Amino acid sequence: MSQAAIDLLKSQFDDILNRLIDFAGIPSVSADTSHAGDMRIAADWLVTRMAAAGLRQVCLYPTQRNPVVYGEWLGAPGKPTVLIYGHYDVQPPDPFEKWISPPFQPTLRDGRLYGRGVSDDKGPVLIAIEAVAACLAVDGALPVNVKFMIEGEEEIGSPSAEMFLQSHAKQLACDFVLSADGAMWRPGEPSLTIASRGLASVEFAVWGAKKDLHSGRHGGSAPNPLQALAHLLASLRTPEGRVTVPGFYDDVEELSEKEREEIRAVPFDEAAYLGELELTGGFGEPGYSLLERQWARPTLDVVGMWGGYQGEGMKTVISTSAQAKISCRLVPYQDPIDISNKIMRHLQVNCPPGVRLTFLKSEGGVPAYRVTPNHPGLNTACRVLEALYHTPPLMLRNGATLPIADTFKRRLHADTIFFSFSTSDEDYHAPNEFFRINRLQEGLNAWVMYLDQLSTSQG
Amino acid sequence: MSQAAIDLLKSQFDDILNRLIDFAGIPSVSADTSHAGDMRIAADWLVTRMAAAGLRQVCLYPTQRNPVVYGEWLGAPGKPTVLIYGHYDVQPPDPFEKWISPPFQPTLRDGRLYGRGVSDDKGPVLIAIEAVAACLAVDGALPVNVKFMIEGEEEIGSPSAEMFLQSHAKQLACDFVLSADGAMWRPGEPSLTIASRGLASVEFAVWGAKKDLHSGRHGGSAPNPLQALAHLLASLRTPEGRVTVPGFYDDVEELSEKEREEIRAVPFDEAAYLGELELTGGFGEPGYSLLERQWARPTLDVVGMWGGYQGEGMKTVISTSAQAKISCRLVPYQDPIDISNKIMRHLQVNCPPGVRLTFLKSEGGVPAYRVTPNHPGLNTACRVLEALYHTPPLMLRNGATLPIADTFKRRLHADTIFFSFSTSDEDYHAPNEFFRINRLQEGLNAWVMYLDQLSTSQG
Repeated sequence: MSQAAIDLLKSQFDDILNRLIDFAGIPSVSADTSHAGDMRIAADWLVTRMAAAGLRQVCLYPTQRNPVVYGEWLGAPGKPTVLIYGHYDVQPPDPFEKWISPPFQPTLRDGRLYGRGVSDDKGPVLIAIEAVAACLAVDGALPVNVKFMIEGEEEIGSPSAEMFLQSHAKQLACDFVLSADGAMWRPGEPSLTIASRGLASVEFAVWGAKKDLHSGRHGGSAPNPLQALAHLLASLRTPEGRVTVPGFYDDVEELSEKEREEIRAVPFDEAAYLGELELTGGFGEPGYSLLERQWARPTLDVVGMWGGYQGEGMKTVISTSAQAKISCRLVPYQDPIDISNKIMRHLQVNCPPGVRLTFLKSEGGVPAYRVTPNHPGLNTACRVLEALYHTPPLMLRNGATLPIADTFKRRLHADTIFFSFSTSDEDYHAPNEFFRINRLQEGLNAWVMYLDQLSTSQG
Repeated sequence: MSQAAIDLLKSQFDDILNRLIDFAGIPSVSADTSHAGDMRIAADWLVTRMAAAGLRQVCLYPTQRNPVVYGEWLGAPGKPTVLIYGHYDVQPPDPFEKWISPPFQPTLRDGRLYGRGVSDDKGPVLIAIEAVAACLAVDGALPVNVKFMIEGEEEIGSPSAEMFLQSHAKQLACDFVLSADGAMWRPGEPSLTIASRGLASVEFAVWGAKKDLHSGRHGGSAPNPLQALAHLLASLRTPEGRVTVPGFYDDVEELSEKEREEIRAVPFDEAAYLGELELTGGFGEPGYSLLERQWARPTLDVVGMWGGYQGEGMKTVISTSAQAKISCRLVPYQDPIDISNKIMRHLQVNCPPGVRLTFLKSEGGVPAYRVTPNHPGLNTACRVLEALYHTPPLMLRNGATLPIADTFKRRLHADTIFFSFSTSDEDYHAPNEFFRINRLQEGLNAWVMYLDQLSTSQG
């Protein structure tokens, strides 16, 4: 039965690829409110496709910012119900000039589709929809019950998800969430993500004199917000990367020897990693391996900072202000609000003389997440990947944040199984994001197999 | 005789003001090479006006970047010869959004003309030309010999002046230079500048991985160029403003008790200064008064820095690079090249692990400058200002740099007397630069008087 759907998908592959090119051509950048219209165009695109696929009750649920796209097929009584999750918003494309082809004109090169959002998360979302469409086309039914929730705010921390899940908890009730978001480890090795780091952020400005000053006339007697910002940012970490904010590590559970063993067991070539990024040596918190730093240790990174003159040549000016954005990755038991507060307190305490600080409204944080061990949805994913790739998947952690998993846990009491066919090297938050064409094919097959196997292994 | 010229200038005042509005409407930004065409338009504007004023040999001398405008009137044998200096280039206008009226649409408000370059240096340059024009119009002659040299590269450190003065030394020979550039202390008190600080600059970039990285996936294991830049910039100064670059103060002569007395004698209201800038307290190198810091102590300021995401919201990215521009003010005996080298060496030595530095080509530096005590050109300026304002002018230093004075000294063996009618509060390197209309009138009268008095006091 699943073979017929797989055959159909194979015959329709070019159409599906063209649909992805069409979908990823919409610049649905959630971080930039000037793209609000594009967000709606992308949501409408999904409604059209999901309805055509045969889903029922397909509609948009408005939120404070970008609507959630919903659809369902519930014709398999007694069978498990899976909530399929993904997002149609994408990261900002800048720096524009570093893209080889324009970010919103998806372009095929060397077996890859290049474009903003193709890997995160429009390709994987389309895989889920097309797999369901093929099953419905060949059988007129699905082997399990499905609900789709495709949101438009993932890249800005899913600010509306909390309220949406609260007010639609009954409608969204499910056995577990199957996420089209996330990423596999490497193109050659199947993997499943069983944990992800949390997120906390702080954005602030440093203010000096009420206006820009001539650095000749005032240099030496007026505080320099750029220099004060440098002092503040330098005070947050040692040059080696250990965070120096008081209390930052208070709630961090040290890795057990067993956990360190597990991580050591993962085949990882540090030299190849560093070489690929053209880094001269390892970097990070002393006392931990590279994978431990990425997966199981909290971090703090300055993700943006600016002030003064950025143009060609020199401008002898003392700027009135300087600004920075700080982003932290958290591990279990760290509370994002608590961490943001500790950072803000540290900045206030260390504020150099003559300047003052203002904090911008934070977009809220996300705690770290772990899947319940031996979850049936996870076991099904293992079997499918082993059948497809002829090797058991690696069980991995994710250094990045999947904010929605925490929200699903709290609101729907449901675990989230990440079953994405993105790969983590696909530059999804950088210029020249791409999605591998063979992964599109493999993902379509895998999703058909997943729904099928879930039906027979459970219920 | 000078009264007739002064009367003529009074009757033509509206025309002169309109000419300034026209001249300052040309966006002659030398720091930005995209304005090369505007530089030429501004130079041509001067040629037209200087020829109409009755100057001879008016022409453009090409340089590597922007032409020098030259003109002369040499019909007073036996009388002193003055080289009148100014510049037609202006500072970059950004940040644009902070201008109340557009920077290149000069606008009158409350007795002031607002626009980029009106005070630095197009207003003062026009004063010199119009004063000469009026004298020639009423007398058919000038009381002394004059040569004009109006350059287009002052705001970028006058890179062509050295070679131009070298190759035109004979043509430009003079008793001294009378500069329309510079600034008076305050609108209410006449003043003359007898010293200025030098300038040295360093521009550099910090490089991490070969591309922007996702801060979730790589955070903790990849070096962060923004954080490394913060560490480097923080290492250059104490939070209080004392420079920590090794050797920075080696050649600095400590102020004598007599010099400190002179500076203490200058009426200066620190509280008013701080209040005007909305600063909460004094700032700067410990052990020195505010004026000592501005006038007689070297400084180091970060004038620009940037890296990562600067848009709305958060982007969880570790940037591939970060960049900064550093500008120093120097005092006598400090060598700009030596200072730049010391800064670069300090940055290299303190470069955090995992990143590497590149230095951008520096625009060269300028040593500090002092006028020869009791210079006749300075004494004439004193008498004119006392006659005009009924109070003897204050003898001041300038915290800023007047690079050309050093070049005139070396190439023409001529001192430079600064006789500008700008005022140092006119925001000439910031948004909303303005020039006081009454200063335009006073400056025209003063320049006529100056030429007249120089003729009778010397020769």
